[in-house]
Order: sequence, then C-alpha cells, then structure tokens
Amino acid sequence: MPGNSRAAGTHHSRPSSSEEPPDLEDQELLLAAAYVSDAQYNRNVPFETSPQAIRLYHFYNHWTMRAATYFFIWVNLALALFEEPAVFPLPFLVTSIAEVLCLTAFFGRLVHFAKVTPQKVFWKDTKNICVMVTIVLTLIDLVIYGSLEAVNIRGVRWSRALRPVFLINFPESRQIRRTFRSIRNTLPDILYVFLLFLFSMMIFSLMALKLFGDRDLRTVEGSPYFTNILDIAFELYVLVTTANSPDVMMPAYELNWWYSLYFITYIIINTYIFMSVFLAVIYNNYRKHLKNEIHTLAYLKHHKMTEAFNILKVKVGTEFVVKEARWRRLVKVVAPDVSSSHLELLLRISDEGQKGHVDKVNFLRLADLLNIRVVAINIKKHPLETWMPRVYQSSTSLLVQKMVQHRQVRWSQIFVWVYDVIILINAIFIALDEKDSLISYAEWLFLSLYIIEILLKLYTYEPSAYFGRKQFWNWFDTLIIIAALLATVANTTIQARKYNSQQVLDIVLILRILRLLRVIVSIQRFRVIVTTLINIGPTMLTFGGLVLVVYYAFAIIGMEVFHGKIHFLDPGSGSPDALVCGNPALKDSAFAQGRYCKNNFNDLASSLILLTELTVVNHFALLADGFALVTHQAAKLYFIGFHVVVVILIVNIFIAFILEAFFVAYSLEKSEVETAIEKKIQELGVGVQEEEVQDGGLIDNMDAKDSGFSADEGDNKKKDLKGLYFRIASKKYKTVDTLLQQMFESEIAPEGKDPSLKEILNFSPKKVNFDNSA
Amino acid sequence: MPGNSRAAGTHHSRPSSSEEPPDLEDQELLLAAAYVSDAQYNRNVPFETSPQAIRLYHFYNHWTMRAATYFFIWVNLALALFEEPAVFPLPFLVTSIAEVLCLTAFFGRLVHFAKVTPQKVFWKDTKNICVMVTIVLTLIDLVIYGSLEAVNIRGVRWSRALRPVFLINFPESRQIRRTFRSIRNTLPDILYVFLLFLFSMMIFSLMALKLFGDRDLRTVEGSPYFTNILDIAFELYVLVTTANSPDVMMPAYELNWWYSLYFITYIIINTYIFMSVFLAVIYNNYRKHLKNEIHTLAYLKHHKMTEAFNILKVKVGTEFVVKEARWRRLVKVVAPDVSSSHLELLLRISDEGQKGHVDKVNFLRLADLLNIRVVAINIKKHPLETWMPRVYQSSTSLLVQKMVQHRQVRWSQIFVWVYDVIILINAIFIALDEKDSLISYAEWLFLSLYIIEILLKLYTYEPSAYFGRKQFWNWFDTLIIIAALLATVANTTIQARKYNSQQVLDIVLILRILRLLRVIVSIQRFRVIVTTLINIGPTMLTFGGLVLVVYYAFAIIGMEVFHGKIHFLDPGSGSPDALVCGNPALKDSAFAQGRYCKNNFNDLASSLILLTELTVVNHFALLADGFALVTHQAAKLYFIGFHVVVVILIVNIFIAFILEAFFVAYSLEKSEVETAIEKKIQELGVGVQEEEVQDGGLIDNMDAKDSGFSADEGDNKKKDLKGLYFRIASKKYKTVDTLLQQMFESEIAPEGKDPSLKEILNFSPKKVNFDNSA
Repeated sequence: MPGNSRAAGTHHSRPSSSEEPPDLEDQELLLAAAYVSDAQYNRNVPFETSPQAIRLYHFYNHWTMRAATYFFIWVNLALALFEEPAVFPLPFLVTSIAEVLCLTAFFGRLVHFAKVTPQKVFWKDTKNICVMVTIVLTLIDLVIYGSLEAVNIRGVRWSRALRPVFLINFPESRQIRRTFRSIRNTLPDILYVFLLFLFSMMIFSLMALKLFGDRDLRTVEGSPYFTNILDIAFELYVLVTTANSPDVMMPAYELNWWYSLYFITYIIINTYIFMSVFLAVIYNNYRKHLKNEIHTLAYLKHHKMTEAFNILKVKVGTEFVVKEARWRRLVKVVAPDVSSSHLELLLRISDEGQKGHVDKVNFLRLADLLNIRVVAINIKKHPLETWMPRVYQSSTSLLVQKMVQHRQVRWSQIFVWVYDVIILINAIFIALDEKDSLISYAEWLFLSLYIIEILLKLYTYEPSAYFGRKQFWNWFDTLIIIAALLATVANTTIQARKYNSQQVLDIVLILRILRLLRVIVSIQRFRVIVTTLINIGPTMLTFGGLVLVVYYAFAIIGMEVFHGKIHFLDPGSGSPDALVCGNPALKDSAFAQGRYCKNNFNDLASSLILLTELTVVNHFALLADGFALVTHQAAKLYFIGFHVVVVILIVNIFIAFILEAFFVAYSLEKSEVETAIEKKIQELGVGVQEEEVQDGGLIDNMDAKDSGFSADEGDNKKKDLKGLYFRIASKKYKTVDTLLQQMFESEIAPEGKDPSLKEILNFSPKKVNFDNSA
Repeated sequence: MPGNSRAAGTHHSRPSSSEEPPDLEDQELLLAAAYVSDAQYNRNVPFETSPQAIRLYHFYNHWTMRAATYFFIWVNLALALFEEPAVFPLPFLVTSIAEVLCLTAFFGRLVHFAKVTPQKVFWKDTKNICVMVTIVLTLIDLVIYGSLEAVNIRGVRWSRALRPVFLINFPESRQIRRTFRSIRNTLPDILYVFLLFLFSMMIFSLMALKLFGDRDLRTVEGSPYFTNILDIAFELYVLVTTANSPDVMMPAYELNWWYSLYFITYIIINTYIFMSVFLAVIYNNYRKHLKNEIHTLAYLKHHKMTEAFNILKVKVGTEFVVKEARWRRLVKVVAPDVSSSHLELLLRISDEGQKGHVDKVNFLRLADLLNIRVVAINIKKHPLETWMPRVYQSSTSLLVQKMVQHRQVRWSQIFVWVYDVIILINAIFIALDEKDSLISYAEWLFLSLYIIEILLKLYTYEPSAYFGRKQFWNWFDTLIIIAALLATVANTTIQARKYNSQQVLDIVLILRILRLLRVIVSIQRFRVIVTTLINIGPTMLTFGGLVLVVYYAFAIIGMEVFHGKIHFLDPGSGSPDALVCGNPALKDSAFAQGRYCKNNFNDLASSLILLTELTVVNHFALLADGFALVTHQAAKLYFIGFHVVVVILIVNIFIAFILEAFFVAYSLEKSEVETAIEKKIQELGVGVQEEEVQDGGLIDNMDAKDSGFSADEGDNKKKDLKGLYFRIASKKYKTVDTLLQQMFESEIAPEGKDPSLKEILNFSPKKVNFDNSA
C-alpha cells in the first residue's frame, strides 16, 4: 500500500522509472538507508529529506558523534568531583572552562540536530527546549557565581543539579527517557495510593497521640515519647521504612503488651499492604505504558521500512521488489561492517527463491535481520595440527584432548572434577591465614595449576574459537588468571623491596577470590540463573542511568545544604570535636555516638555513598535526625523526599522490571525472524549449535559436517559461504529494545496490515507525540 | 458422554427408567446433591455411594460439623496461652484435659471421614495419616510430660509445635493447604537460587576476610572487625536484611572511602538483585502451580456435575434432560436456605425455553449459579411513608431527603460537604489537647452531629435497604457511632465516680479516630482502592492462616529454647538486674542497652510479637545477638532459619499474591455465568443496578420501574418474582476459589469437551493425587 505510506507525509520525490543517474540513485540509497537504520535502532526522529540533510543525518548518527556526546555528558557530570566541595579540588577557572566546553559541545550537537530535522518539529520538541534552557541557565549561573567569587562572596552553584538533564534529553538516552516517561505516567495512580497512605498514617498518628501522649513515657534516650503530632507522623513514616522497628514500639510495649497490637496493625497495613500496593500499581502501570510504547515503536519501524521499500522498489512482473544489487548496496550503507559472508547469508534468507530480487515482505524484515547478531565461525584446524600433525594426533594427545573436552565418556569428567576440587582446596587455603609461608607458597601452586588448565584448553580448542566474541566464561577465566599472575608478580617484587603496597595486595586478593566464581560454570542449574541475570544486565544498566540522574540531583542539593556541617575527624587524634563530628549540636546524639561522622555531604563521593545508605533504608531516621540537628528540623523533608522518590518509586520500578524480565526470560522463545534465519542456516548446512561451541565440541563436530558440506562444493551459489559456519548469537546479549519488543511481540498486529502514520500514533491511548516518543 | 464418566469409576448403580419408588429416588437425589455440593464448594473428596454413606457425607459437610472442627482446632492452638510458660497460667491437669478433648474431637472427625470415603482412598491420603500420627505423638508426649511432672522433672512439650498440623490437614483448610503445596513445589527452584546466593555470600565473605581481616579495625562497640569467617558470613547475611547497614560498613569506610564500593556492590548484588530474583522465582512458580491446581479443580467440577446429571437425567425426545420438579428438589437439598424467589430465578435462567426441564449444558452451570450470590431486594415503602404519608411527602421532608441523597442537583452536595468539614474540624479537635473542658464538651457536639446524620439517612432510606447485607460502609458508620456513644457514656459515668478506666478511655479514643475513616467514602478514587483491598481481604486471611502456622511452630520452639533466659524487670525498680534483663551475660550488650528486655520468649504473646519484629527485620542482628549471648552462638541459626522461611519465602509469596490479586482486580470482568444471570435478570425486568443501591438511589428508581413492572402483572409465569428486585452481589466479597478460578478462566477448555477423570488428573504436570488435591 504505497499510497498509504505516501499519505503519511514524506517530502522526497522519486521518479518511477528504475534507471536514474548514479548520483541521484546514491541519494535515494542514502535516504532509504536512513530509514532502515532508524528502523533498526528504533530512532523516531523525523529528518529532512534533502540530499544534504540526509548526509548530515548519517553523520549525526555516526558512532563517533554519539560517543563524543556521551563523553561530554560524562565530563560535565564528573565536574562535581573537582568543584568545591571537591574530592579532588581544582580551581574554579579550570572547572568553569571545562563546563563551558561541554556546553559548547551540547550546543553544537543541538545545532547539528536542528539542521537535519524539520524546523517545526525541532521547536515543538520539549527535549530540545529543555537542553537549550539548561545551557542558558548554566551559563547565567556560571557568570553570577564567577562574579561573586571575584568579590569573594560564596554563591550557590544551583545549576549543577540540572546537569542530569543532558543525560536524559539527548536522543541517545532513549531507554532512560522511556523509564522516566513510564514513571511520569504512573504518577497519578501512585498519587492516590500515596494520599490514602498519608491519610492512614494521619489516622494512626492521631491514635498514637491520644493513646500514648499523656502517659509521660520516655524513649531509651530519655526524650518524651509520642507527645507531638509532627514527631509522631515522622516516626510512623520511618516505621514504614522499618528503620525504627522495634525501638518505636518498646516504651508502649513495656507499659502493656496490648499496645503492641497497635504497632503490629500499623506495620501490616502500612508497611506490608501499602508497600505491596505501591509495587502492584507501579508494576501494572509500568507494563501498560511500556507495552503502549513498544507497540508504537513496532508500528513506526514497519512504517519506516515501508518508506525505504517505496524508495527502492521497481516493478517486476506483477509485484514491486528491490533488485539484488540495490539491496546489497543498501545493506553496505546501513551496516558497513557486515562481512561479505554475512551479507550473503542475509541475501539468501531475504531472497528465498534466489530470483535476484527481494520482495516486500522479506524487505520489511531487514531491520530485524540486521539486529540479530549472526556469528560467523571460521572453521580452522588447530594450528598445532597444521604444524605437527603427527604429534597432535598421537594417542596420548587425543586422550588429553578428550579429557579436556569432558563430554565423551564418564571417566573423562575427571578433568572438570579435579579442577573443581582444586578450586575448593584453594578456597580453604584462602580462608586460612596466609602468614604461614607454606600457605603463601601454595598460592603459586594454584596459580600454575590454573595456567596449566588454560594451556590445556588452548591445546585442545582452536584458539580463535576459544576466544570467540561471545565466549564470556573463557575470557573471564583467562583475564582473571593473567591479572592475578601479573598482580602477584608485582606484589612479590614490591614486597621483595620491603615496600608493601596495599592497593596491589587488595587487587591480588580480590582476583584470587573471583577465581572461585568458575565453580558456577560447572553446575548447570547455576549457569542458567547466571545467564538470565547476564541476559537482563544491559537493561539493568538503564536503571543505573536512572538512579544516577536522581542521585546526582539529590547529591548536589545535599551538598549545597549540608556541606561542612558534619566533619569526620580521626577519633585517634583525641580531639573532643572528633566525638561530636566537629559540630557541638551533635553532642549526645545517636548520630555521633554511633560514629557515623563519615556519612556527610562534604563531597560528591561521600554524598553518593550516603544516599546509597539511605536507599538501603536502615538507620534512615538516625541519619536524618543527625542532619536535622545540625541544620533545622525541616531538613527531614529532604530525607523523606528522597525516600519517596528513590525507595517507593525507583526501587519498585526496578523490582517490577526484574520481575518482568525474569518472566520473559523464563518463557522466552526464539522470535519469528530468528527462527527464519536459523532455518536458513540449517538448510544451507552451515549451522553450528550453540551448545556445541560452548561445550567445546566444535571441532569434533566439524569433521562430521565437513564431509557433508564438501559434497555441495560444486554448487556455485554457495561458494561464498565455504569454510564458514554460522550460528545465532545466544539469547543473552540482546539489546534492551529487542528484549522489550519480544515481550509484546505476540500482541502486535500480524504482517500485511500497513497502518498509516496517523493510525500508528493513535495506537497509544495517550496521544504520543511523534517527536517526544523518540 | 455418559459412558466416559462412567468409566471414571463411580460405584453407584442406577436403573435407567425415570420412575422409581420415592425412597429410591430420594437416595439418588441425595447422591446427586452430594456431587453438586462438592462441585459448588470445590471439594475433591471421593465418597462412598451407599445410601447410608451419603447421608453421613451430607452430615459431614454440614456447617455445624465444620464449625465444631474449627472450634476445636482453635482451642487446641490457644492452649499455648495457658500452658507453662503461660500468659494466663492454668494447671497442667486442666490444659491436658482440654487437649485430650480436642484430640478426641479430631479423632471423631477422622472416623466420620473414614466412614464416608472409600477405605483405599482414606489410607492413601497423607492428610489423614498426618492427623493420626500427630494425635498419637501428642498423646505420647502428654503421658511422658505428665509422668515427669508427677516426679517434678520439667520435660519438653515438643508435640506442641505439631499443633498447626491440625489446622493444615483437615479438609476444611483447602486454601492454606494449597498455598503450602505451592510453596513446596516452588522449593526446588528457590533452592538453586538460594545456593547461588549463599555461594555469592561466601565469595564476598572471603573477600572481606582478606581485605579487612588483618587491619586491626574495631567496630563502634570496640570488638574486632571482620576477623572471623563465620562472623563475617553472619554479618553479611544480616546485611541482606539491611538490618546492620550502614554500621557494618563504617569501620572500613572510615579507613578509606574506596572500601565502601565493596559494600555497595554487595548490597546491589545480594540485597537488591538476589532478593528480587527470589520474588520473581516465587511469583513465577506461584502462578504456575496455582494455575495447574485451579485447572484441575475446574475439570473436577465439570466431572462431578456430569456425574450428578447422569444420575438425574431422563430422555426427552432426542436429548437427556433433568425434569423441573427433580431439579427443584435437588436445589432445595443442595442449598436449603435459597429463597423460593431466588430458586425461581435460577430455574428461569437454567430452563431458558420454559420447557419444564433443564438440559445438560444448563445443568452443568448449576454449581457456578449457586456460587453467585444474588441479592433479592424486597422493595418496600419507607415505614414513615406508610404511617404518615402526608408528612413524609411534604415539600420540607422531600427537600431533606434530596439533600441527604446528594445526587440531584449541585447545591444538594452540601450535605456531604458539611459533614466532611465537620469530620475535619473533629480531627483538629482530637489533635488539640482535650484537657480543656470546652474541647471535651465539643466531643459531645460531634457525637450528636454524627447521630443526627445517621438518623437523617434512616429517615431518607428504607431501613432494611440501608442496613442491607452488603452495605459495608453504612454498617461501619452506624456501629462506630453507637460504640463511641456507649463508650463515651460509660467513660463519663466512670469518671463521675472518680474512677478512671484506661481501657475504656483507650477504646473511646480509638473509636473517635476511626470515625475519620468516613472521609474515604466520599472521595471516589479512594473508594476504588479500598474496595480492591477489601476485595482481596478474604484471600489475605488465607495468608493469616499460613503465617499463623509458621509463627506458632517457631514460637513453641523459641519458648522451649529461650524461655526464662531474658526477663523484663521494671527499670524504675532500681534493681541492677533490670539493666541486664535479668541475665548477667547481657552486660554491656546492645540488647540490654537498647532496653529490649521485653522482647523475649517467656510466653506465647511475647513470642509472637518478637517474631513479628523479626519479620520486619530491623534490629534483626541485635535481637539474634542478644539471644545468642544468653544461650549459645548456634542460637543464631534459629533466627536465620526464621528469616529464610518467613521473610524470603512467605513474605514474598504474600507480595506475589497481592500483585496477582491486584492485577486481576484491575482487569476483572464479569464471568460468563454472571453475565448470563444478569441478562436474565434484566430480561425479566427485575434488575437493580448495584451503583443505584450504593448511592442510595434505590427508592427513586423504584417508582419508575414499578409502573413498568405492573404492566406484566397478568403474566402468570412471573408471579413468583413479583415485588422483588434482584441484583448480583458486587465483585467484592468473592470467595477465594471463585476469584482464583476467574483468574485462569479464559485458559480452561471450552464447554462441551468432557474429559475423563483420568485425563483430568493428568492435566497438571506433576501428577496430582486425587486424594491430595482436595
């Protein structure tokens, strides 16, 4: 339905004949490539279709440009480490110049974007406005702060809290923005539950005031118990975090055990039920909004692929198709680093009948095809086999190889068992005291045993297969061992010179223990769980970004408000100030008595660590009280705000995400496109099962297959694939978007229906703005 | 497919002619009624089909028998309150006689059950074996303990920990058993995650030992920091509960802030990711197993209804049907308390064509039909209208009524607003100090205002409609106000006699504050959330049962192990023992310093409260340490065990359940059968919308409908329904089974397929035992 997609409002013009001057065709190709590339990476930015704009657009999306943007975003964020209050102090002049540089880079990126996108779209996009406003505000703040600095007045660098805006609002941060949007959409529903929760807290506060207020009870610290309604409300809020249980209950409980029922009721209703309801509401909304967004994304992808098809199509017989030559050029533009054998495989899948052209249905799959990483394995003989075949194929050598491969007969499992036992003994040795020289010499023994293991494996497996791109555990093993070897050597050298470097020793110790992780690999059930965790790892990083944004903003605010109020002084110094964290207001407080002075907002690192502690929630009240003592009772609002945003909102979204990801991982089937590719690979007889590679059975298997394959050697069509084996990269290492799309794949309308752009945008219940959903 | 179900192995014999002696027919009816009743209540106990056994079976399932069983179960559990260590001590003779009585009752119930169920089935059922073994063990324990008591040796009453077995293993506790089964089925999966978690903890423990062990660091209390691998493992386990954060990190953090990264990594991996994975695994398995069980239940129901149909069917024309007269008698036996109008409605739904008989499809729905509570509303005029129509219909009276109904015009909302404001002012008055006599007199004002409100409502609405069975909020309002009135009067009377009863005052205060909850009713969004919570309330009670079972067992064990080790002595007494909780081993411990002496295992109430505190997790380590000090370090295993069972397993299942229930509540549609009933009610013109009743618009609406209805008066068929209106009881107040079945309704095979009993039992992946799945 070309007319349909045409109506959706693209601006390019295309002559209907298939023969154009090469220059014109080049431009068409670039335009189509831009569409395909957008579809592949789920970019939803509308772009100008003039030849110059398309070239600029390709440049805009080039990885170097995106990497540079990220670099400046991170430099900008990292500036807080060097500004007052600093971990590593630098003069204001240096940091401000660095900041101006970053702002210039952001501005440049924005200008570049403005050149490739239609003016109207650009100015309607809140992202761009946000970035521009933030740049201007930061410059103003810099100027004011600089001027005040010049006359020696310390100003407030408030614009620093805005820095995460850049991380969120550049089109590169699609996932973080999606999560933010999902939070924003959940807010109304959360709000009502939260109000009800506050109402319930208020009711309980009133009850507590009436029940306990007049009894003249005292807390352990001797302060009055439950006499002030605001104090009660704060205590009860903290009880939701569980941080003051059971202390808050003890005075009443000591009076009469019936009163504990009040607290138990409160805990059941507000801590358990309400917190679960928060999770349920967040989870429910998270799923709903995510589904809508992914829905829209999938339709947009389809739309863009149709656009690309319409640009490149020619009529052959009754149907429109894309010629093979053009298709090849297109793929080369979209994915320049695709190997020619991979390209051949893709063509074979897309052009099933080998008619020399690709039809529409197959063309539309191209974006998905490109997203599936196919690993081309170049089957080579082991180098040793080539160099000295007789020795390598001798019966002793073969026995060693079979033992290492540990998949032939039962007794050959011995290799794995022996090494598991070695690791176990190693663990016991680590746990023992190592000052005994015998034990410290044993370390060298273990190290050499591990090195021997790696060498044996390299002897058995072809090295480039062993260190394949996706052989995570092989890489892990080898890197840990090499690093441990280097660090141990370094440590011994340093020690020999009577100079003990703690850092190097720490690294040695950690590496030595990380080696024990290898046990996981040999137990199948463990490997499954770990694989699932690694599977959802990249998506968890999105949350890392989200958490960073919130933490950073709170840290900057915290630093402005609480900076320098609490100091950590070495208690060994004997200074009386050390006992009150350098602030007399903390005298006799639980904060100072518990030696929490190190928890302060005096620099970015301390602030972030403190915020992490607050996220874990324990001693929440103690920490909040400490900072309220040195400033004002209102400071508690900062801590409650942090709790609501991070613990109630973000941690719940994190849990919701892990739940969802785990359910998907449990029920994950191969996608339709993946199945098609696999079928083709098998048909062509160039497939390798993933497990075979992982278990190291690659080489055995090759012998059997090789003969079957060579029978086809005369077939001209297959000559490009000769000597190569393919397999689909395993399910792990999926991109976030792929994983999410797969979650809702079944609910997306079947192929063949091409909705118009208008229809697409109406799919989501709230009218998603085309520009915003990028 | 009667042959099919016959093959499934029932034992009754039935002559194929439809005319039998009345006595024989009675027995058939009883047998069919037993099947239908089993299907209605999802009972899966096979029973003997001899006439006597069926009568016994009906008696076995009679509510008085079930209530008696529950009564004895609770008495048996409650005995722990009166036995040493007792809350209310009673001599051993009394409690042991009570226990023997309970055991006799349990045995009687078991013998009764053995009489109605086939011998083979009875002896293969682990539930029955469990109960018998527990009875025998308890008797043995009683005899041993009694003999030892006689010679003044204090024995261990270990069999008390077995008491929850009765709560679980009587067929009455289907839901609790199902949850237990669901936990048992989840265990293998949990186990692997748990092992991996322990492994990760071990790795981190080793790292901590190497990193911090040799630094000679000290904790705040001055004890060595991270020097012993077992201590480290315990500390790190506690860190997963967050109970010792950030204390556990402070010494290392003070040394160098880089070391905090170790703890943050640990918290992210073990506290956040692993705990979420536990939730994910539990949730996933919970759903899976629940689905299987419900699946089986639904098929069994279908099977039993088919059995009942086959017993009662006669051939009319080409198809088998059940005659109307027989159908009526069956329903009367199955549900004796169904009103004749309700029966008429059910018949009208089942016998659509009014042919005088019910066909198979409609007969099979009977169990579901009986489960749907249809409320018959007897539309009466307001009594006042009958007594003094002129006054009641006067314009002033009508104005009052309209204001109270608050649904006519905008200004009439004023009634609700006025009372919301009154409640608000009331809240402020409560928060203020009430020693001021003006304020304490205001309390009487508020009380009278609330009473006036209720009287006005009773004036407007017909009293029996206002106090309808499902008018939760009306009941709530009235009861709270009446109770507050009584308590206030009682309190004033007591005070007038210069005698201040704290208990009465407490009740007054709580009631006074609970009145504020009425605000929720007037805000629609709040009402929705609260309704959902009430909706899943009954199912949450299942969890109450589950938690009780586990708590009770742990409390009994705790009482045997830790009883009398820690005493709460009034600190005001000045005794030096009071500062160490009566145990010198606690000198200088955080336990004694924090005044936690009241947290002990000295009686059942204290134990349960302490276990609740441990569930909330905060100060978990402090409490565990305290008990380890007064007994042995191994005591910590008790606390870790409790944490694993309750916090990791049961709390997660609770959260999983709330999540699932909320998702269902969000997406709950009326079931197919409900829709059919509603359609019929509407067709017959006797329907009342639920909202109308709730908003109190019942009476207005009646006038309009009454006229329409009277037109049909001549219709003979409808004469039984005259003057009655029906509505389906609202979605809330569903039974647990109904809710769960509805969750998975869509996945149950469509009607018409009658699987055999064998097939049914093979549906669940693990072969569910027919006897066990009851």
